[in-house]
Amino acid sequence: MIDVAFLGAQARPAATAVVIDVLRATSTITTALSSGYERVLVAGSIERALELGGEGRALAGERECEKPPGFDIGNSPEETQTPRGAELVLATTNGAPAIVAAAAVSEEVIVACLLNLDAVVATLAASPGDILLVCAGTGGQITLEDVYLAGRVSAALEGERTDAARIAEALAASYERAIDALEASSGAVGIRAAGLSSDIAFCAQESITTVVPRLVRMLDDIAVLQSAESAGQSSGATRASESAAA
Amino acid sequence: MIDVAFLGAQARPAATAVVIDVLRATSTITTALSSGYERVLVAGSIERALELGGEGRALAGERECEKPPGFDIGNSPEETQTPRGAELVLATTNGAPAIVAAAAVSEEVIVACLLNLDAVVATLAASPGDILLVCAGTGGQITLEDVYLAGRVSAALEGERTDAARIAEALAASYERAIDALEASSGAVGIRAAGLSSDIAFCAQESITTVVPRLVRMLDDIAVLQSAESAGQSSGATRASESAAA
Repeated sequence: MIDVAFLGAQARPAATAVVIDVLRATSTITTALSSGYERVLVAGSIERALELGGEGRALAGERECEKPPGFDIGNSPEETQTPRGAELVLATTNGAPAIVAAAAVSEEVIVACLLNLDAVVATLAASPGDILLVCAGTGGQITLEDVYLAGRVSAALEGERTDAARIAEALAASYERAIDALEASSGAVGIRAAGLSSDIAFCAQESITTVVPRLVRMLDDIAVLQSAESAGQSSGATRASESAAA
Repeated sequence: MIDVAFLGAQARPAATAVVIDVLRATSTITTALSSGYERVLVAGSIERALELGGEGRALAGERECEKPPGFDIGNSPEETQTPRGAELVLATTNGAPAIVAAAAVSEEVIVACLLNLDAVVATLAASPGDILLVCAGTGGQITLEDVYLAGRVSAALEGERTDAARIAEALAASYERAIDALEASSGAVGIRAAGLSSDIAFCAQESITTVVPRLVRMLDDIAVLQSAESAGQSSGATRASESAAA
């Protein structure tokens, strides 16, 4: 069965959970792992991310779309294209709780955005069992761009689907281009207001990478993500986790 | 602002909450008040409804789409067209909790279905303040037919809307006829299996009544609904409430 949770807090048990926060957390995570970062450590707050800072780690985050004091870069996928260390620590207020909620009830958690759409669909097509597409939303509100991508993914898969998945598919079918859905979303308003419109265009690009970020470990409230291509190399993940714990 | 809660449990504070359970609770409530019942008392369980039975009250309800033992009629709008008393006691597993949840946080609660669509839109167009369209769903799952109607109502109103409302509107626009949305829904499966396909066709009729059921009183977990046209006559509602308490 293919199902959609319209908000991260609504995640329910599933074999595979796919976390979606198109503007911008999952686009940033995917870009970072495509660009040479080995791991992304996702934290639920600015303060928690600051605690994780250190040698070989770049700090990325936002507060109302702006880079917070003490951070290296904002929560911008474009800024992660040039690695500043082996690991990116990303503070995100909506993406992190969605990943944590999904991890609590799912066997496998991967991360999706438009940038890796085809690769995510291929991964899911090969996955057995229930698939739950988890839309992060913003501040507890459903956001159009996340449900749009959930609908794109669902429509590309075979198999039974819930009414929630079919609602998302109807939304996806109502936009000719991804950029139209992103521009129409409430999530775009704050990003435009912060002068970051180029981020919206960047996040609207489809299938420019085959990297599918995969949750390899939760350590308390920190989610450690690696590319599915390299997730088998668990020693690196272990080091990151130990370091995150310290 | 016009917003949609995709499930009853997600109701949030609003000036006006519009509860939607197209198959079949809100269609049954609307038909009952259109057909001569003075009030509908909505209970969350078969057992609670049985406690409310008595002189001048008809008992309506379902357990897996079938009429339970001791009940006069099923949860079928068609069966409420011939009143069997002044009050209808309706046991409904999804509609009742949605009404209770909406009542807990909203100033005004009305009930919508396709049968009173135009009247609901006219009522809302004249209402000040936030509007929340509350989809009951089924067993905690989002259902297509409820979100479809939420989209129809939202699309007919002026004013700002949330992304959730726009998602519902996109779903509504994807069906040419209401019956197509109802037939496609997961809610229709059980109804067809119970041999009640005619109920689906009945519930798909648009704007055949001007009655808008309005919540006039909560008494513990029992919602007392009257037609907005007669809701000003509060003495009757008071009697019903006192009787419900007994």
